[in-house]
Amino acid sequence: MDGESKGSFNVMEGSESNGKGGCGSVVRICDLVLRVLAFVLTLVAAVVIGADKQTTIVPIKLVESMPPLYVPVAAKWHYLSAFVYFVGANAIACSYTTLSLLLTLGNRRKGMETVITVFDTLMVALLFSSNGAAIAVGLLGLQGNSHVHWNKVCNLFGKFCDQVAASLFISLLGSIAFLFLLILPHLFRLKQTI
Amino acid sequence: MDGESKGSFNVMEGSESNGKGGCGSVVRICDLVLRVLAFVLTLVAAVVIGADKQTTIVPIKLVESMPPLYVPVAAKWHYLSAFVYFVGANAIACSYTTLSLLLTLGNRRKGMETVITVFDTLMVALLFSSNGAAIAVGLLGLQGNSHVHWNKVCNLFGKFCDQVAASLFISLLGSIAFLFLLILPHLFRLKQTI
Repeated sequence: MDGESKGSFNVMEGSESNGKGGCGSVVRICDLVLRVLAFVLTLVAAVVIGADKQTTIVPIKLVESMPPLYVPVAAKWHYLSAFVYFVGANAIACSYTTLSLLLTLGNRRKGMETVITVFDTLMVALLFSSNGAAIAVGLLGLQGNSHVHWNKVCNLFGKFCDQVAASLFISLLGSIAFLFLLILPHLFRLKQTI
Repeated sequence: MDGESKGSFNVMEGSESNGKGGCGSVVRICDLVLRVLAFVLTLVAAVVIGADKQTTIVPIKLVESMPPLYVPVAAKWHYLSAFVYFVGANAIACSYTTLSLLLTLGNRRKGMETVITVFDTLMVALLFSSNGAAIAVGLLGLQGNSHVHWNKVCNLFGKFCDQVAASLFISLLGSIAFLFLLILPHLFRLKQTI
């Protein structure tokens, strides 16, 4: 029961719980910094793409012999389901980070820390899948695909695409912060083992 | 140092290392079963989509007043970069699972087990991002998107799309197996804590 009494905080496992001590507080500070970082990044990513909207004038030819009609066409993030999933995933991750921050600061029961680690893992899966989906669709918008005759749209909606790219980059950083939340305790443990 | 001497295998942490014992061998067996499952599923997913190819005859009208030309058009997985990434990610995960299985069976040094857990986490990120990318593009192929004038292609390449869907489903199961590799030790620990 020795390890149980010493290892009161999950992110410190492998440092305090193995009786070596030392790195526990560093890991805990890193955990809090990463959690705050993940909160800010997922929030900004969701807001940046959620506020993304552009209207441009596109020439459309109805009859070949007639001059084109100039029609206003809008680009909105919720027109593509991958972006809807992306916003949803970032919003969920952001809300969860707030909750986990409160729980991490207020509660140090062993069971709760284990629950937080499980949910951190689920957030990594959720965020990376949404990033993959949004980047794949974003690349199609940027480059198009001649094989399936999907034309690129970023030549028409430059500002919209720039904002999507910025949001994707910020969310990717947030996902990496979540990834580090999971692997950092292991890296500290590895450092102690070597 | 008590916890260190007891916890020789990483997946058993929280069971043997906290001095309670009991669930260690169950977790280890689950780990091996999940690893074999992940290997089989990622291998099958990569092979199923890698062997996916369909040629169909499409009517193309060059001049409005003339009858259409019937042209053979092929659908191949490497025409879409999301599917290339999907195949690559599944191949990497499959190769890694082989290596991790060998290391898990042959080596029980604490450092090595920590390294395996770190790489398991990276595989979750890799697989879920590739699944997200492939599912997003697959859905566009199935439904199209009227806002960006991307027509659906699955009405022409039914067999190709069915095979893609099967591969995506299998890979998703493989990703979930990887996810359980990470969360199962925590769930067992939580069971012991309650």
